[in-house]
Amino acid sequence: MEFIDIIDFIGTFAFAISGIRLAAAKNFDWFGAYVVGFVTAVGGGTLRDVMLDMTPFWMEHVSYVVITALALVFVIIFRRHVVRLDNTFFIFDAVGIALFTVVGVEKSISAGFPVWVNIIMGTITGAAGGMFRDIFINEVPLIFRKDIYAMACLAGGAVYYLCLWTGLPTVATEIVAALSVFLIRVLSVRFGISLPSLKSIEQDGRNDA
Amino acid sequence: MEFIDIIDFIGTFAFAISGIRLAAAKNFDWFGAYVVGFVTAVGGGTLRDVMLDMTPFWMEHVSYVVITALALVFVIIFRRHVVRLDNTFFIFDAVGIALFTVVGVEKSISAGFPVWVNIIMGTITGAAGGMFRDIFINEVPLIFRKDIYAMACLAGGAVYYLCLWTGLPTVATEIVAALSVFLIRVLSVRFGISLPSLKSIEQDGRNDA
Amino acid sequence: MEFIDIIDFIGTFAFAISGIRLAAAKNFDWFGAYVVGFVTAVGGGTLRDVMLDMTPFWMEHVSYVVITALALVFVIIFRRHVVRLDNTFFIFDAVGIALFTVVGVEKSISAGFPVWVNIIMGTITGAAGGMFRDIFINEVPLIFRKDIYAMACLAGGAVYYLCLWTGLPTVATEIVAALSVFLIRVLSVRFGISLPSLKSIEQDGRNDA
Repeated sequence: MEFIDIIDFIGTFAFAISGIRLAAAKNFDWFGAYVVGFVTAVGGGTLRDVMLDMTPFWMEHVSYVVITALALVFVIIFRRHVVRLDNTFFIFDAVGIALFTVVGVEKSISAGFPVWVNIIMGTITGAAGGMFRDIFINEVPLIFRKDIYAMACLAGGAVYYLCLWTGLPTVATEIVAALSVFLIRVLSVRFGISLPSLKSIEQDGRNDA
Repeated sequence: MEFIDIIDFIGTFAFAISGIRLAAAKNFDWFGAYVVGFVTAVGGGTLRDVMLDMTPFWMEHVSYVVITALALVFVIIFRRHVVRLDNTFFIFDAVGIALFTVVGVEKSISAGFPVWVNIIMGTITGAAGGMFRDIFINEVPLIFRKDIYAMACLAGGAVYYLCLWTGLPTVATEIVAALSVFLIRVLSVRFGISLPSLKSIEQDGRNDA
Repeated sequence: MEFIDIIDFIGTFAFAISGIRLAAAKNFDWFGAYVVGFVTAVGGGTLRDVMLDMTPFWMEHVSYVVITALALVFVIIFRRHVVRLDNTFFIFDAVGIALFTVVGVEKSISAGFPVWVNIIMGTITGAAGGMFRDIFINEVPLIFRKDIYAMACLAGGAVYYLCLWTGLPTVATEIVAALSVFLIRVLSVRFGISLPSLKSIEQDGRNDA
């Protein structure tokens, strides 16, 4: 097992935990919590793979199904401690976003798409799982309203290409891009930086819909 | 027309009715009710086929479009009686879940995937339509919170392989697996058996999301 | 750039504006508003292409990503005026629906599917983007409850084949079909025509779900 696999597992575990915790807050049963955890962990990559016309990645290794099960067992056993571990999970989650973004960019590159598609695919890989999670639990997706989240993925994809164009070797490019996502995510939350909202427009724009 | 086609039609009809009734409770218009009924009936199999990289099954036979239309006409004409037929539709619905699960497992097998993917595909075929239905009508998906539903599909997929490994012929395997799904579904509702929920965890786990 | 491209851009712009305005009413940040605008504009065609097993159309030309960005900038700059332009955007939106429907029908024809699939694909192209938009902002999809919208697409698809069967050349067929969608949409709103709803059925049909 390589280093990148370990990070992949940590990211998957953190994403699954985030889904299971929100499902728990909505009184989902164990199975429902498992599904929400699984979709949070693999939803972004699945959407990417379907659009790239590839087999969804989780169908090729049983590990994602198993890791989500471990996350469920973990939450059931340590339910009280899970609350206090907020900061730990936040860091794990940020590691997951960073890694997933780089994986998404590279998978899209391997499918032969242009730069801008690859950056979007990286962003979808990192951010869409959380969006599906929020749709499943019937909330307005959090990534649309709070913090810098998907923007960190987008920036990471751009950094990936900047590194590549300056001639950095692939491994260094991957590390710098992932670090960018991680740092933008963590620092934006630490310092309360967020994007401006559009709220001062009219309250009802539905008439023309 | 073979026996399995008749069961397929009954299952599709029951799924469509379940979607149309919920759409009616939300004041959808006829077209909206039709779409919700159609998505309930074919949504699970469509998600399966897209992930297996196959043409969605309903695009190959006009029957699913027609059966959903018949279900809509049925609900419009017999709206009052539909309420009293709760038990009948519950049985039809359970028949549909059972059949769809077996169909899903076998379609995934034919695409060459491993056992655990096939069982998941069977579960998605049987249970995801109801999940899409609830997202469309803006409710938290029912299958995450109530009764044994998707778990029955999962168990049925496992039974399918148990039968296969004990050397049962295909037809017997299909019947035993479908019966397992049907009985688990019906008995769990009859005796009020459900999975434990995760509700006693913290109410707000969103901070780390 | 041909005439059809200009109409395509106008339709995309109008769809994106409709998504961005609704996202603004929900206090989404700029990025969230962009995503909702983009999904409104390309969601229907993406679902169509995934089911037809084609590469999603927006991955082949950067224009849709750019036009959505222009729509976001437009809304940010002219936020107050956007409200007063309701009628203008309604017309743009109707043009977009009309064009997207014809594009969807023809793309499905080119993939070799039967008539009824092609008409459904045209309807999905024209109407599903607005449905995804409403799911993202956590509302019951508007197209299920108000006005003639998806029905106009469906009728336009039927008109397309009527024209084809009467021997009209392709260009005339396209124009007549698109005009049908446009006129049905505009006239139904102008005269307050809508489909009957199913509301008088029981309020709780969930028991048999």
